[in-house]
Amino acid sequence: MEFKSKTLSNGLAIIGEVNKSAKSAAVGFFVKTGSRDETEQINGVSHFLEHMLFKGTERLSALEVNEAFDRTGAQFNAFTSEENTVFYAAVLPEYLIEVTGLWIELMRPALRDDDFTIEKNVIKEEIAMYKDMPSFDATDRCRRLHFDSHPCGNSVLGSEESIDNLTAEQMRNYFAGRYAPNNITLAVVGNFDWDQICSKAEESCGAWQRQTVERQLADYHGSKKKDRIGKANLACEHICLMSGAPSAQNKQRFASSLLAVIVGDDVGSRFYWELVDKALAETATMQFGAMDGTGVFYSYIRCGRENVGKVLDIAQKVFCDITKNGVSEDETRTAKNKILSALVIKNEVPMGRLVDLGFNWTYLQEYRTIEDDINAIKAVTVDDVSSVAREFDPADFTQFSIGPV
Amino acid sequence: MEFKSKTLSNGLAIIGEVNKSAKSAAVGFFVKTGSRDETEQINGVSHFLEHMLFKGTERLSALEVNEAFDRTGAQFNAFTSEENTVFYAAVLPEYLIEVTGLWIELMRPALRDDDFTIEKNVIKEEIAMYKDMPSFDATDRCRRLHFDSHPCGNSVLGSEESIDNLTAEQMRNYFAGRYAPNNITLAVVGNFDWDQICSKAEESCGAWQRQTVERQLADYHGSKKKDRIGKANLACEHICLMSGAPSAQNKQRFASSLLAVIVGDDVGSRFYWELVDKALAETATMQFGAMDGTGVFYSYIRCGRENVGKVLDIAQKVFCDITKNGVSEDETRTAKNKILSALVIKNEVPMGRLVDLGFNWTYLQEYRTIEDDINAIKAVTVDDVSSVAREFDPADFTQFSIGPV
Repeated sequence: MEFKSKTLSNGLAIIGEVNKSAKSAAVGFFVKTGSRDETEQINGVSHFLEHMLFKGTERLSALEVNEAFDRTGAQFNAFTSEENTVFYAAVLPEYLIEVTGLWIELMRPALRDDDFTIEKNVIKEEIAMYKDMPSFDATDRCRRLHFDSHPCGNSVLGSEESIDNLTAEQMRNYFAGRYAPNNITLAVVGNFDWDQICSKAEESCGAWQRQTVERQLADYHGSKKKDRIGKANLACEHICLMSGAPSAQNKQRFASSLLAVIVGDDVGSRFYWELVDKALAETATMQFGAMDGTGVFYSYIRCGRENVGKVLDIAQKVFCDITKNGVSEDETRTAKNKILSALVIKNEVPMGRLVDLGFNWTYLQEYRTIEDDINAIKAVTVDDVSSVAREFDPADFTQFSIGPV
Repeated sequence: MEFKSKTLSNGLAIIGEVNKSAKSAAVGFFVKTGSRDETEQINGVSHFLEHMLFKGTERLSALEVNEAFDRTGAQFNAFTSEENTVFYAAVLPEYLIEVTGLWIELMRPALRDDDFTIEKNVIKEEIAMYKDMPSFDATDRCRRLHFDSHPCGNSVLGSEESIDNLTAEQMRNYFAGRYAPNNITLAVVGNFDWDQICSKAEESCGAWQRQTVERQLADYHGSKKKDRIGKANLACEHICLMSGAPSAQNKQRFASSLLAVIVGDDVGSRFYWELVDKALAETATMQFGAMDGTGVFYSYIRCGRENVGKVLDIAQKVFCDITKNGVSEDETRTAKNKILSALVIKNEVPMGRLVDLGFNWTYLQEYRTIEDDINAIKAVTVDDVSSVAREFDPADFTQFSIGPV
């Protein structure tokens, strides 16, 4: 395993982890932009833009893009979050340069008015579909409530209204400002030739123009407001709880992952034994979301209407107990094993490794080996986990639920 | 990468692919039993039994099983098909022996009456849930229609009626006959110590009793019947088409995978361009299912009620054209790239590799390296693919659809 990095004069970062014994390779463009970088007027543009990249360039139609991916046999996709838009592909080593070249071309899309108009309906259908998924909707609305006027509360998909009002011109302006080379990392892992990738990037991305790119980075621990809406046809209550957490840059992030597993892993966690095993809730999980300059713990609980009061009391007690008395050696050890095996298994495949490599660079401008992360997790002590609970106090949460009218 | 194999005197096969540079290890028990090995009276018992293994042994309660997995941090699960029941886990190397020991214990479950009665309801809920998924239901009913009285038509889940009538005694008898050591393969891949695994298996599985285990292995190319049912509240037509195909032992299996990708891959296939891209169907895919001694090509198409006639005409034309005129060099090359990248990416992670290793042994009693499979796919010619189409004639299909009343 050999790490390589290079920054072009326009600011495009190229990073690579070469593993000549791998049988595949993966490539990704990590664009540091998402819904938190949008204003209310253009909310949803990052995600919409991700779709538009597949509609082609001045040279390639959408059909030709499709056929070009097809020829390489690539497994490819893209996703947009509050703060990242990522395009990636995994292929056999002999097709890596071809698929990298294709992504490079797509990074300079045509953004045609006609395609924009047609795709608007696809986006609106996606919004409607997610609105019908109460677990998603509860989390999305809770994030807005929790982050209040902080931009991390912006919905990734946007609203039907914001998408309706969005113009192609606004999207082109957003694109010009955010898809600047100095806001993008090109990451490659697996079996590939570093020099060949660098030449390809220099030749094809060298003319991209550097821009001033900014992001509002205030830390924020949440509004702690409570709200609920009723919806016809729902049988269960969907509850989302959010509280402040360390950022992606904070060293406490490893202890925070452990805390979330101890409180709310699918199986064997405190939520599991207190709520799921006792059949008070169908599901009760807690996750840690590390973000740029801030962070959030979020819990999702689904239960029958008749159990809501009891369930919330118990969740509150679980949080209070952990804040007051900390965690045990036993549960810390178990949580470490779970996190370590998930981490190692994910990073063994180039596509999984790519995401961790790219995000470490995006957030930290730092290369971290898998061993660095393994050691950081192994080094977390019971006190570290208990301190995170004390300091960030998950018992003091924002709450949003969706349930029967 | 080093392959190892050993058979205990009671017939238990132990196989391993050691890769000392892997950061994880995976272990699986491959029991050669599934719904095709059931009679009508006990239909669904294999899948029900898979659930029961997690309910514990004479020594361990279900709760203790849960806690024991939890301590190792394992990612574990199980699945049942028409012909296999597989239990597997991926862990950090230092926990492999512990989790292997746990699976070994679970392979001799208590099968308590009380647990059986409680779990019956879980199984019935699962049956009800799948009945509500028309894509699943159409495939399940089509398989029954296609295989007619051949046991490969048996539903994996069974029916509400067969589960209702099943007794714990029947399950214990089925278990005693099918979970014999000579019907089980223990497979291990990744970073592990072969001798340690063998000692553990000898010590803990050595006393398991060999049994006479049989399976009905007739090849069958389908009834070619047509049927349809209407269901209230459905908006679309869900169409399943099945036709005969090579078995898991047949060398034509590689060409058959290519044929299925050419006709019905998600994107870029003949179905894609003729049906999905033209917006006649929402989805139209074809897959190749290699089975023990027989095989099946199955297509699934979802479309609006108004398009059913047109869609079936086009699907028929696609099949006839490929049977008459064969496939092209271009589409064969693209299909190879798709299959090779999916194969390589899957096999790079121990859990993915485990499944291929285990099934190759189950079906062929043969060790095949990833390179063996890569080379076999690369060696397929345009003529090989065209021959499969001619010989097995996908245009002559069994058809089952579910749609609006």
